[in-house]
Amino acid sequence: MRFSRSFIPTLKEAPAEATSPSHVLLLRAGCMRKVAAGIYTFLPLGLRALAKIQRIVREEMTRAGAQEVLMPAVQPAELWQESGRWEQYGPELLRFKDRKGTEFCLGPTHEEVIVDLVRRDVRSYRQLPVCLFQIQAKFRDELRPRGGLLRGREFIMKDAYSFDADVDAAGRSYDVMFAAYERIFRRCGLEFRAVEADTGPIGGTRSHEFQVLADTGEDSIVACDACDYAANVEKAEARAEGATGAVSEASAAPPVEKVATPGKRTVEEVCAFLQVSPSALVKTLIYLADGKPIAALVRGDREVNEVKLKRAAGARDLLLGNDAAIAAATGGPVGFSGPVGLKIPIFADNEVRAMADAVVGANAADTHLRHVAFGRDFDATVVDLRQAAAGDACPRCARGRFRFFRGIEVGHVFFLGTKYSEPMKCTFLDEKGVEKPAIMGCYGIGITRIAAAAVEQNRDAAGIAWPMPIAPFHVTVLPAQMNVPRVVETAEKLHDALEASGVEVLLDDRDERAGVKFKDADLLGAPLRVTIGEKSLAKGVVELKERLAKEPELVPVEDAARVIAERVKARLG
Amino acid sequence: MRFSRSFIPTLKEAPAEATSPSHVLLLRAGCMRKVAAGIYTFLPLGLRALAKIQRIVREEMTRAGAQEVLMPAVQPAELWQESGRWEQYGPELLRFKDRKGTEFCLGPTHEEVIVDLVRRDVRSYRQLPVCLFQIQAKFRDELRPRGGLLRGREFIMKDAYSFDADVDAAGRSYDVMFAAYERIFRRCGLEFRAVEADTGPIGGTRSHEFQVLADTGEDSIVACDACDYAANVEKAEARAEGATGAVSEASAAPPVEKVATPGKRTVEEVCAFLQVSPSALVKTLIYLADGKPIAALVRGDREVNEVKLKRAAGARDLLLGNDAAIAAATGGPVGFSGPVGLKIPIFADNEVRAMADAVVGANAADTHLRHVAFGRDFDATVVDLRQAAAGDACPRCARGRFRFFRGIEVGHVFFLGTKYSEPMKCTFLDEKGVEKPAIMGCYGIGITRIAAAAVEQNRDAAGIAWPMPIAPFHVTVLPAQMNVPRVVETAEKLHDALEASGVEVLLDDRDERAGVKFKDADLLGAPLRVTIGEKSLAKGVVELKERLAKEPELVPVEDAARVIAERVKARLG
Repeated sequence: MRFSRSFIPTLKEAPAEATSPSHVLLLRAGCMRKVAAGIYTFLPLGLRALAKIQRIVREEMTRAGAQEVLMPAVQPAELWQESGRWEQYGPELLRFKDRKGTEFCLGPTHEEVIVDLVRRDVRSYRQLPVCLFQIQAKFRDELRPRGGLLRGREFIMKDAYSFDADVDAAGRSYDVMFAAYERIFRRCGLEFRAVEADTGPIGGTRSHEFQVLADTGEDSIVACDACDYAANVEKAEARAEGATGAVSEASAAPPVEKVATPGKRTVEEVCAFLQVSPSALVKTLIYLADGKPIAALVRGDREVNEVKLKRAAGARDLLLGNDAAIAAATGGPVGFSGPVGLKIPIFADNEVRAMADAVVGANAADTHLRHVAFGRDFDATVVDLRQAAAGDACPRCARGRFRFFRGIEVGHVFFLGTKYSEPMKCTFLDEKGVEKPAIMGCYGIGITRIAAAAVEQNRDAAGIAWPMPIAPFHVTVLPAQMNVPRVVETAEKLHDALEASGVEVLLDDRDERAGVKFKDADLLGAPLRVTIGEKSLAKGVVELKERLAKEPELVPVEDAARVIAERVKARLG
Repeated sequence: MRFSRSFIPTLKEAPAEATSPSHVLLLRAGCMRKVAAGIYTFLPLGLRALAKIQRIVREEMTRAGAQEVLMPAVQPAELWQESGRWEQYGPELLRFKDRKGTEFCLGPTHEEVIVDLVRRDVRSYRQLPVCLFQIQAKFRDELRPRGGLLRGREFIMKDAYSFDADVDAAGRSYDVMFAAYERIFRRCGLEFRAVEADTGPIGGTRSHEFQVLADTGEDSIVACDACDYAANVEKAEARAEGATGAVSEASAAPPVEKVATPGKRTVEEVCAFLQVSPSALVKTLIYLADGKPIAALVRGDREVNEVKLKRAAGARDLLLGNDAAIAAATGGPVGFSGPVGLKIPIFADNEVRAMADAVVGANAADTHLRHVAFGRDFDATVVDLRQAAAGDACPRCARGRFRFFRGIEVGHVFFLGTKYSEPMKCTFLDEKGVEKPAIMGCYGIGITRIAAAAVEQNRDAAGIAWPMPIAPFHVTVLPAQMNVPRVVETAEKLHDALEASGVEVLLDDRDERAGVKFKDADLLGAPLRVTIGEKSLAKGVVELKERLAKEPELVPVEDAARVIAERVKARLG
């Protein structure tokens, strides 16, 4: 492809609102343009990357036995009312009426439509399993779209749905999809981790996220440095460190003692004042769970994981209490809350159960209690409540410790069970003629988000460094002097030879200075760049440079096509 | 692909609302399912056909120099307000507000978005021409969706837009697209005609429709039997038959005479009563053009073409007048209108100008006038106003006559000129630094409608007969007895050999009676069917049948894979 005939409008600067690297670079490299907040047009270069991602996804879905369908973007409210989500889903669900006044929405996901399809056409266990997928533009009316393709409103997704006759078979479907996802992200050339995840509002009982590792990622993930365990920090299990047995009611600690702690509100202030370590203090936080106060207890050196608390409390909404809520629940001001004598539900982290001689707030201004023992002086529902931390012991293996990573979620697999098939009556007759709901799984991949994540992970200050399998072009051929016929001819020949061997080439045939071309080549990010210059040509060589390498390699002109083609092929895997 | 592992839910009967053959057959053959009025899910078989159509379109667009982009389905009202279409477009434009109250629409077409893109990134004549295309789901909120994919609400379109520096270059872009369209429909295996068309609400000055010929088509098209001229009947030029010169004011006809025609309202009744031929009568119809009365005159044996009348009158809305409107405009009742003495604008067809001794209504009950001459007794704006008819002389060549066909519009090319680039200020600087609006063309293809049109054109009572290039599968391999190991083995081997040679095979491995399989093979419509039966196998042959052939051919087992592969390859072109 010739640059001069391509629509590749590069920009020197991106709009100020673009702050994340992929947002900036995809705009600057002429891969996309904004149409409205969170809504983009994909230009030829961007679409080439998306098309390659889609092809990999399609091939691996098909290989995994899933069949491609295409559902509509516009979905009738009727189906969402059946599943209950018409009410439950927030304002991200864009609802509207057609000209006749019938209610519809723009699909952010397609569980309702696929369940309606399958319930009409599948009647017998003999028709199961069924696994269907589609690749399609979806719409979520995000309040604050950000990061360009990282969190857009209109975006391209692959979504798949499996229907099985029983839980075992559904588990196998889940495993097959999990393996397909690993192949997909590997084939895209991305560094990623599959992590255990919270199931969130889509519901279900088992869930993994596929996270592309990138410093700029929005998600925190932890991974054991010894075993395979990895999880979203929201979900990561925290192992109670040190002694974890319950404290007996007959604690060896002295009786509870009230101490004055004037103006000491924070863990640091109280510990310094009382000369105890933060691990000897119980941090007590008051939350409003669906509007009702609850208390959450963790060790002073820990943080509360609100996702875990929400799940433990069975709450749909969880809010940290304000001063008024704290005063109403405890009788004291903020900074002096404690579990002793509290009349609201109390949830304590595993580690708190082992605390036999702790400092807690006294629910009164400027006062704390010391020598407080769990079980003797207060009681609580004991659960895993704390945020995992770097260096934590792995809950799965005896040896490992947690390391933290930043990640960008590009895929998510859910075991749904009967969450949709029961309310929507997606049933089948089993071998004995008994009617049963299908057991479902759902499996999403953000196609546009993969492109953004790939850029976040693979770039430098000068531009993108696309992984070979999803690069818009494999190679940039860059004739340095357009007024030197031999340079231009050599470049043209190399372009033709490479295209003939299946390599995708962008020939920068523009009548521009070499410096401009080098800058654009770095910005656009083809994995390889080959420069044909007058001087090197006189020595019979061209300069081949890997996008992120410091220096080019010199390759004899006559070998260039072969060397490049081999390197591209090897990298495509 | 094995039928037993495919999601191909066939139906014995389609819902009663499905009346057009393609609607019935695509539902019955498990190609699609309805989600809401005019909104469908495409099942694996239907999607395979659509994917093949898309591939052909994509290849030919790329070959024609167009570059692929992808614009959003959700478009900001702002852009439509700039072009003026936010007000002009009817209720087919689905408008809605996002959560912040900003107005958007679901794109039925993308002129506004592409113009906004190009005006931001193209500034110089050196960047032109640019031709961009996309393939995407569009939405038009049709009042009465019908015919399944023939007129749906959500449908897949390829739309392309060209931008040129001057009218000549834009004409060349149009011609290149025209040629690409011819290749596309030919490669899809369709019988079609490119016809001149009215430009309609999209506007512009030059326009062709690509019509797939089918008896069930909604559109009437005429084509000369001698030259290349073909046109949508709305647009088809009608040549004035016989003498066409103007009648002089000094007509040779006797003076106008009033005659009683009690109760004779229709052309037939009046002609029989007065013993004149319909070609000697002037039919006068009263219309409301944007609410104001006008009269349209054609010969008694002709029909008014309302598209031509609308254009001649420069009207946006055109309605046939009711009794009250006729009385108000003429003073007489319906059936007795005539041009003599009328005080409203009169438009007369070319042929009327030559009428020197005609019968017309007298604008009074039960009364006509005879011996009426154009020019002497009334005057009118003379235009081409009549509907072309079969047997009409071709307006382009001296020799030919019109034949009529029914067609389904699957593509449309428009020369837009500056209709969008002027109001939206999509300009560039020419060689002299002068700012000029880009000259545009736009080019649509209904991807989903092609699938429906292909079925309308290629079918019989038993089912679909897909053209080879867009058939979901090329061949059905049908083992007649699943309990005869040799039959099953032969079928499996043939399936594997064909797939290895690139033929797409549906192996009907279901444990069903042969009769059921034959019925489904006819319904699904693979172009070839090969039956492996116990008896024929004993003779060393299999039965190869073309979908629409009456009888199968016998092919030696060992030749079957080669023969079929060759035939498929030849048919793919």
